[in-house]
Amino acid sequence: MKIINLDHISSQPLLPEVKAAMIEAINADYHNPSSQHKSGEQAAEVLEKARESVAQLINCALAKEIVFTSGGTESVNHAIKGVALANAEKGKHIITSNIEHNAVIRSLRRLKSAGFNVTSLPVDSSGRVNPQYVAEAITDETILVSIMHSNNETGTIQPIEDIGKIARAKKVVFHTDAVDSVGVVPIDVQAIGVDLLSFASNPFYGPIGVGGLYVRRGTRVFPLLDGGVQENNKRAGAENLIGIIGMGKAAELAVRDMDARLVQLKHLKNKLLTELPRYIDEYILNTNVQHSLPNLVSVSIKFIEGESVMLMLDDDDIAISTRSACATGSLRASHVLLSLGLSHADAQGTLVISFGIDTTEDDILSFLQSLRKVVTTLREISPLYSKKTAAPR
Amino acid sequence: MKIINLDHISSQPLLPEVKAAMIEAINADYHNPSSQHKSGEQAAEVLEKARESVAQLINCALAKEIVFTSGGTESVNHAIKGVALANAEKGKHIITSNIEHNAVIRSLRRLKSAGFNVTSLPVDSSGRVNPQYVAEAITDETILVSIMHSNNETGTIQPIEDIGKIARAKKVVFHTDAVDSVGVVPIDVQAIGVDLLSFASNPFYGPIGVGGLYVRRGTRVFPLLDGGVQENNKRAGAENLIGIIGMGKAAELAVRDMDARLVQLKHLKNKLLTELPRYIDEYILNTNVQHSLPNLVSVSIKFIEGESVMLMLDDDDIAISTRSACATGSLRASHVLLSLGLSHADAQGTLVISFGIDTTEDDILSFLQSLRKVVTTLREISPLYSKKTAAPR
Repeated sequence: MKIINLDHISSQPLLPEVKAAMIEAINADYHNPSSQHKSGEQAAEVLEKARESVAQLINCALAKEIVFTSGGTESVNHAIKGVALANAEKGKHIITSNIEHNAVIRSLRRLKSAGFNVTSLPVDSSGRVNPQYVAEAITDETILVSIMHSNNETGTIQPIEDIGKIARAKKVVFHTDAVDSVGVVPIDVQAIGVDLLSFASNPFYGPIGVGGLYVRRGTRVFPLLDGGVQENNKRAGAENLIGIIGMGKAAELAVRDMDARLVQLKHLKNKLLTELPRYIDEYILNTNVQHSLPNLVSVSIKFIEGESVMLMLDDDDIAISTRSACATGSLRASHVLLSLGLSHADAQGTLVISFGIDTTEDDILSFLQSLRKVVTTLREISPLYSKKTAAPR
Repeated sequence: MKIINLDHISSQPLLPEVKAAMIEAINADYHNPSSQHKSGEQAAEVLEKARESVAQLINCALAKEIVFTSGGTESVNHAIKGVALANAEKGKHIITSNIEHNAVIRSLRRLKSAGFNVTSLPVDSSGRVNPQYVAEAITDETILVSIMHSNNETGTIQPIEDIGKIARAKKVVFHTDAVDSVGVVPIDVQAIGVDLLSFASNPFYGPIGVGGLYVRRGTRVFPLLDGGVQENNKRAGAENLIGIIGMGKAAELAVRDMDARLVQLKHLKNKLLTELPRYIDEYILNTNVQHSLPNLVSVSIKFIEGESVMLMLDDDDIAISTRSACATGSLRASHVLLSLGLSHADAQGTLVISFGIDTTEDDILSFLQSLRKVVTTLREISPLYSKKTAAPR
């Protein structure tokens, strides 16, 4: 069964070269990179080669500023809890935004119950934080600013460089959750002035469950995982070498192909945005067209439920999501969409359409055809829609 | 180059069936198990199948008592910090032993700086904790007992069942770090009466960087990784499905082959213990022969440095370790060996010889021959040894 994957934000396929590198690693039976004999040294070399590739992808000053983790969620938890606990004596105030991923929100909630104070900044109707608000929120007690690079539900990209300048000027540690940006759009940690940056391998076609945390040299942060001396003493536990080798190869390819991928993805996104009004009406575009990822479009379709659209598209072998896969099962409307000013009803009609370099124009057109059919069917049985069409104009 | 791996405790090779399962998973391009469309459901099925296999290996009452993690270190951090933070209102006292892995020691050190009190129990000269000491150490403030199942440097197995009975009688949560036991010796979480049990996949020939935490239903423990709702809300972050599939297959094989493996490993261990005195003299056996893992022997060779032995054996293409790979680079003598009553000098002469089902008798004999040569060479240049032999008898 051939499924059209327009839910790349939840899972992207592995590139053939990434598969080959991982299969080679499986067959190589690498030893533990921390062991001091020849077999261990050989594994350590391979590990460090992957670290170099990943460091290059985000332009680290030093490869050892990369700490390998089990994915974006671990990286975010490590950054936020690690900075908070390491700097609690300086102050207990943290600044974030209203549209962060649950990894950030729930890490901060955990810290709140330990006595930290959190200021959560609003976003404008296009989903962006005003850097000036960050400047105004910083106090003598502020030890961390954590604002995401791009949003996983809308694709909107934040003015991270401007926020970085403010944090730097006020000498406050700055973390950005860049899980959906790294390897998708160019990221230069030195240019954007962040101290910590969380990322994962899957958005650039590496394996799920593998990621990293950039820690600028000299940044004070406690480990999240205590134990052995792996990862320059920043993250204990034997490394998932097979996964890391996959991420290293994926990083290498992302550096090489970034420009070509951007051209292709932007073309697909334009196609989708241009064609969409020809297929359906009465929808809200949640993606900031000017400042957003090239591979994701969020729309809220009025008078129907996104969940029903998703299930009916699934019957047509089209995979799509209504929100972050991490929030599956939650019945509440997305906090991200409510923060943009959407009503609960409109938020419930949301589809997140995300694609990748394996997506074709035909996939987009097949999706649009199915979508038109599904929307028509659902609106025919929608009490909201019949009420609306019955109302006097 | 064919290397004889007698450092299985740091890294075991993947079984052919595990490799095949992981390669199949790589080629299958599974979607995110949390996604609600068909592709996601297919991935979720595979994930739950692996959970069943792992649950069966340790005889969980319910498969969902297994939480997948990035390895033993994460599991231990999750268990210890999670229980402490979730139960801090009841009390702040924790009991452990003097010979735990650094993941336990350093997690507890982190908690100490947050106001928790830790009682660390001594072991006898054979490396075992007296369960009676645990009973005596428990107070009204005690919220957790964490005692390892087997020691990664000596192989000695603790009287976990007896400790479990005491913890249960006094209604104190009991965690055991069973990283080097699960899949190697039979473990039945219901029989031994633990509430939490940490394990990793590599000791039973699965991939490194993959593990799990058993959490008995109803045990109060906070997540270490906050964020999405994965793993029944106990551990956020998209799962490393490829690694978990490898662990699932390895668990299945461990259940099937446990008895045969035990016979083979015990035979190799006996061979090593029987032959050793024919090759070298003046050594201390650190392994409790009666209560220990079948795949590990620790000896401290007098008058020489284990590190030098390791390096010279490495020249002979024999991989061995002197201590936990997680403690690589530390110059201090092992806290485990000092706890057994060894002198610093004797502790520095320690070799950890660990093997697996791919090890042959010939490997053991080749090792012994090299060892004799190396020990003779090193003792010839050892000031300690010449002083000793020059002394009047």
